[in-house]
Amino acid sequence: MNRPEPGLPHTGRVIDADRLHAVITAELARRRADVAAVDPRLVADVELLVEFVTDGGKRLRPQFLWCGWLAGGGAATGPDADAVLQVAAALELLQACALLHDDIIDRSQRRRGRPSTHRAVAKRAADAGVAADPEHHGVSVAILLGDLALAWCDDLFLAGALPLGAAHRAAPVWRAMRTEVLAGQLLDLAVTVSAEADPATQERDAMRVNRYKTAAYTIERPLHLGAALAGAAPATIAALRTYGTDIGVAFQLRDDLLGVFGDPAVTGKPAGDDLVEGKQTVLLALARAELGRAPDRVGELADLDAGVGRADADTEKLTAIIAGTGAVGAVERRIAELVGTGLAALSSIGPDGRSAVPDPVHERLADMAVAATARRR
Amino acid sequence: MNRPEPGLPHTGRVIDADRLHAVITAELARRRADVAAVDPRLVADVELLVEFVTDGGKRLRPQFLWCGWLAGGGAATGPDADAVLQVAAALELLQACALLHDDIIDRSQRRRGRPSTHRAVAKRAADAGVAADPEHHGVSVAILLGDLALAWCDDLFLAGALPLGAAHRAAPVWRAMRTEVLAGQLLDLAVTVSAEADPATQERDAMRVNRYKTAAYTIERPLHLGAALAGAAPATIAALRTYGTDIGVAFQLRDDLLGVFGDPAVTGKPAGDDLVEGKQTVLLALARAELGRAPDRVGELADLDAGVGRADADTEKLTAIIAGTGAVGAVERRIAELVGTGLAALSSIGPDGRSAVPDPVHERLADMAVAATARRR
Repeated sequence: MNRPEPGLPHTGRVIDADRLHAVITAELARRRADVAAVDPRLVADVELLVEFVTDGGKRLRPQFLWCGWLAGGGAATGPDADAVLQVAAALELLQACALLHDDIIDRSQRRRGRPSTHRAVAKRAADAGVAADPEHHGVSVAILLGDLALAWCDDLFLAGALPLGAAHRAAPVWRAMRTEVLAGQLLDLAVTVSAEADPATQERDAMRVNRYKTAAYTIERPLHLGAALAGAAPATIAALRTYGTDIGVAFQLRDDLLGVFGDPAVTGKPAGDDLVEGKQTVLLALARAELGRAPDRVGELADLDAGVGRADADTEKLTAIIAGTGAVGAVERRIAELVGTGLAALSSIGPDGRSAVPDPVHERLADMAVAATARRR
Repeated sequence: MNRPEPGLPHTGRVIDADRLHAVITAELARRRADVAAVDPRLVADVELLVEFVTDGGKRLRPQFLWCGWLAGGGAATGPDADAVLQVAAALELLQACALLHDDIIDRSQRRRGRPSTHRAVAKRAADAGVAADPEHHGVSVAILLGDLALAWCDDLFLAGALPLGAAHRAAPVWRAMRTEVLAGQLLDLAVTVSAEADPATQERDAMRVNRYKTAAYTIERPLHLGAALAGAAPATIAALRTYGTDIGVAFQLRDDLLGVFGDPAVTGKPAGDDLVEGKQTVLLALARAELGRAPDRVGELADLDAGVGRADADTEKLTAIIAGTGAVGAVERRIAELVGTGLAALSSIGPDGRSAVPDPVHERLADMAVAATARRR
């Protein structure tokens, strides 16, 4: 199978990163000007959001949107393709809102190798000696910047869907996507707070958070949205959604492994970040289940439960405990299975006897399934 | 002039409160079900948002939207009117996001006579003994509930604008409105943090916050949006926007007076709430300017500056200092002037020689100008 590398000439199968970048920067320049018209002093705050969106991220959701668009028969160039790029940019702004607000909720100090936005604002306020409570000021500004990103993403969705005449058919997907990711975040919070002790319940909860907070939002719905914009056949949409759910969950399971075993120099996050944060992952649930079944390992289980979620956790020790179980292997197997079922869905045949997902997109999605689940960051 | 009272038979000039309520409750019931489908445990959180929107508020923005719609020639009944009610409901959800997030930013303990949402969640978590940090949990949930409200308001905007075939012409107004209110909130924060000492600068900043955070968002843009949905003539839109800006600023100046002198039993907020919060209002700027000009009143000015923005402020004393200046009278005069210029704009004549704002809407807007600026809560 042909596996294009990043940087190879644009064939239309891959979203044009330069054009997407140009759409994002042009839109953000207009928005910076809108905010400056209210008051020039706001530009410094908004610039943090602009840089966050301009410089950051893997543009994963736009790529999947693009694949859905092509799978549904959309053109790779021309005015319709330009309109789809507006929706692609919308996904990046939605993601900016999710990350800014998530970092407040998780009290994350760093993101993408830099201070998180609320921390950056707090530090600037503290350095300037303004704000009685710089931390609270940082959180306040980051809440509003996230809100701006959320409002602007809807503007971009409309700016793309209206000229395509596709707003009616794309709106239900757009609606579901935003509600699912926010409900998934709420569920993540509820699950983390309740700190379920039973490993089976913990695993089921973690899978459900993966399903909504990540899988639907990152892969399934972007593909679905692209296909809906193109007016794809139901069989195509069904195949893409099955692929999206399976690869999306596998993507999150890889993230869970990286959150414990990832190299900070590559991930941009501190080592064992998920352990300090107390994230209730499938990996952790499987490790706890195994330790709970072995009478001679109750000490390790107690250490794990005592350490996870503590700011001063000994992450090296906790990482070693998890590595000493079969949980890592089990998660790796589950990732492999999901990649298998996800790829199989791409081979499904529509009622017209033709492949539900056309060959060039099929190949591209196979490449992306590997990239999303075998990554190091 | 005929001044209809609330509860009088529906004439079409007033938005039908029962129908609006029905639209809001039906939409929220669907959304509660969407979230329950992700996980039934989320319903308790979302119920707080549902109650907040269902029970609360003066429905001021929907009223102005309705007036803009009628002024632009929209029908008071039928399918088009039903579609406009969807957009009216969208405004209430946008307002819910603004208030939930604002209460976090302002650390407001109460809203509409009840605990603010982040406080209600925090209390529930503390009572249940879950969450290591109930306060942070409350803030986290309220951030996400506000995000849901912001996403859902966009869904409702589309649900109304698409069947009207008005999405193209209404989208720029919708875009401007959301950016302005969020930029206005950012500016409010920037102004409060910088704590400008010069009363003239402070007054100018306060007026600018009023302009964007309140006037545009509460009156000007809802009128403009309704008129845009109806495809109103430019002269009509211009008249409505001038009215909206003037009455909107006057509305906020009234709010500033109520924030210091309001009756807590009527406003639902503690006495002198704005003083504790350190809100930089035109009222405060005018009081400070007057005290600063009188050499024998430097003590009062020092007391005022030392007290405003402190959680333990002696609000009775601060209120008395402000009442002892001419600031209250000056703000009252400014309100009266703005009501005058705002009402005058309604009498403007279009290029076709006809009144830019038709008589029945003109009368209704005149009533609402009084209601918005002479209110006690």
